[in-house]
Amino acid sequence: VQGKIMPRKPVIAIIGSGQDMEPAVSNAREMGKLIAENGWVLITGGRDAGVMKAANEGAKEANGLTIGILPNAKADISPVVDVAIITDTGQARNNIVVLSADVVVACGVDGAGTASEVALALKNSKHVVLLGASEKAISFFTQIGEARIHTTETPEAAVRIVNEQLDQR
Amino acid sequence: VQGKIMPRKPVIAIIGSGQDMEPAVSNAREMGKLIAENGWVLITGGRDAGVMKAANEGAKEANGLTIGILPNAKADISPVVDVAIITDTGQARNNIVVLSADVVVACGVDGAGTASEVALALKNSKHVVLLGASEKAISFFTQIGEARIHTTETPEAAVRIVNEQLDQR
Amino acid sequence: VQGKIMPRKPVIAIIGSGQDMEPAVSNAREMGKLIAENGWVLITGGRDAGVMKAANEGAKEANGLTIGILPNAKADISPVVDVAIITDTGQARNNIVVLSADVVVACGVDGAGTASEVALALKNSKHVVLLGASEKAISFFTQIGEARIHTTETPEAAVRIVNEQLDQR
Amino acid sequence: VQGKIMPRKPVIAIIGSGQDMEPAVSNAREMGKLIAENGWVLITGGRDAGVMKAANEGAKEANGLTIGILPNAKADISPVVDVAIITDTGQARNNIVVLSADVVVACGVDGAGTASEVALALKNSKHVVLLGASEKAISFFTQIGEARIHTTETPEAAVRIVNEQLDQR
Repeated sequence: VQGKIMPRKPVIAIIGSGQDMEPAVSNAREMGKLIAENGWVLITGGRDAGVMKAANEGAKEANGLTIGILPNAKADISPVVDVAIITDTGQARNNIVVLSADVVVACGVDGAGTASEVALALKNSKHVVLLGASEKAISFFTQIGEARIHTTETPEAAVRIVNEQLDQR
Repeated sequence: VQGKIMPRKPVIAIIGSGQDMEPAVSNAREMGKLIAENGWVLITGGRDAGVMKAANEGAKEANGLTIGILPNAKADISPVVDVAIITDTGQARNNIVVLSADVVVACGVDGAGTASEVALALKNSKHVVLLGASEKAISFFTQIGEARIHTTETPEAAVRIVNEQLDQR
Repeated sequence: VQGKIMPRKPVIAIIGSGQDMEPAVSNAREMGKLIAENGWVLITGGRDAGVMKAANEGAKEANGLTIGILPNAKADISPVVDVAIITDTGQARNNIVVLSADVVVACGVDGAGTASEVALALKNSKHVVLLGASEKAISFFTQIGEARIHTTETPEAAVRIVNEQLDQR
Repeated sequence: VQGKIMPRKPVIAIIGSGQDMEPAVSNAREMGKLIAENGWVLITGGRDAGVMKAANEGAKEANGLTIGILPNAKADISPVVDVAIITDTGQARNNIVVLSADVVVACGVDGAGTASEVALALKNSKHVVLLGASEKAISFFTQIGEARIHTTETPEAAVRIVNEQLDQR
């Protein structure tokens, strides 16, 4: 029925480097597709680069809704972002990405920006799935995040973890 | 075709008081509906109150997409917001609302929050439609905003102004 | 005694245009000096331009402490700012300027940036002194700010109002 | 001479947990004192807790200038903070702390907040001294920060590193 109030769809953040690194980019593309197929909304840092770009393209393959949280109006916005939120808060936009997500999935933790997002997610009591992260990243973030850090090697397993977390909300 | 890249839809912000004031609330509801009917995305401050609530409800009557930019995770999110962006930036979220919009429509300028949004929109070189604003608000904002301030009394006229601005992008 | 805890000094914000306009710039210079002479800390938008620059120079004539809240690291920082806070929040820094002040003094409300700061100050329940403002600005902000808006034509009178507000904290 | 323009003093950030942990708190107190003795300005997260509190108390023992960057107006402000900057940006204030510092010193990286600050500092191209950090933190941040990460066990050595970095500006 037109106008009927539906519960808000879960929002899943995919975070990762703006550089093209593997397996991060391939994982991000597959995660984006799976997120859309599950009917969830995808949120990313919105740039037309690396993990962000791949995740949004994957979601669009499955006709998902894609929201990009951009640092400023001059950023290179991914053309497959449906709605671009212009924050003008620089790296502090990372806090908005993770705060707006029900669960955060990091495709690699290969740079300082992604590391800040994982840390901010934990600080804001979010659960974080580290997908294909380095041993050092897993070791450090498990030390500070404990049970809110989940690690896996495949997008399919990551989706199962996301589902478990959504069930526990 | 699935996966085809479409140009991003225009995003229109409706701003106004969280108090129930007339004609602001009725105008917001009608504006929200017209925005959705035009295929534009609606962005608001996202709360379940006043102009924000009415605009989102109006947009949902026409099955529009509604994005709410919330001050923090404890805010009363309108249940007809499709995607809630949690900024944790307090009143500074007002800057994000206007930066993310192609055109800003103020349904009344009855409080300090809305006044800050009109001013921030002007500072960020956005065009602002004052719909049903007081004489004092019109007089002041025309003084500082000049040609970027547009005034009208009806949602239909406001939509015409929005359309003209979108054409000039 | 070294290390004795003193109560924090009052912080007064001077806001106004980055353009050189009179009487705004002369008023800002005198206000900065009076703020320093009263032993208060001066906070401004920190740029080396217009009201900000004049206020900081005035405060330095009386050896005051000057804090600048800058939009980003590339901004032209006033050389008479003692401590530059780099926010990377664009115009949203205006919210930080007013939130950090006990009382806000606007030397003219001649542009959209200053108007946003007056509005954000009111939204955050701060008292604002409009010094040498236009009739339209006074008329509008009195309508939305009521008793929290104070108007005057001289720095000396503005300081008296600031003192009254500090006494009522 | 009164009014003479002096170069801005270096600003050093001390970051660390709001919990009372050793050796982080003792290191922070000593670092705060050394920063003040060197004539530098101390910037912290400003709360009356853990590393922040100890650093500010140490700086005050040597009559230093202490700036606190607070999450919001309700935060417990350290009474030995000279100027409290109220950001209302939640955890995103961490970005402001590191952006405003010439060099960042982490006294332990024991929680997610501090981890986010180290990461944001690196993302913003700042040099970070890890003082008394865990092996896992050193290992991870060296991986992503490379030459901008410096590690040491004593405040005296940390000050030497800060001095070297200030010389290279």
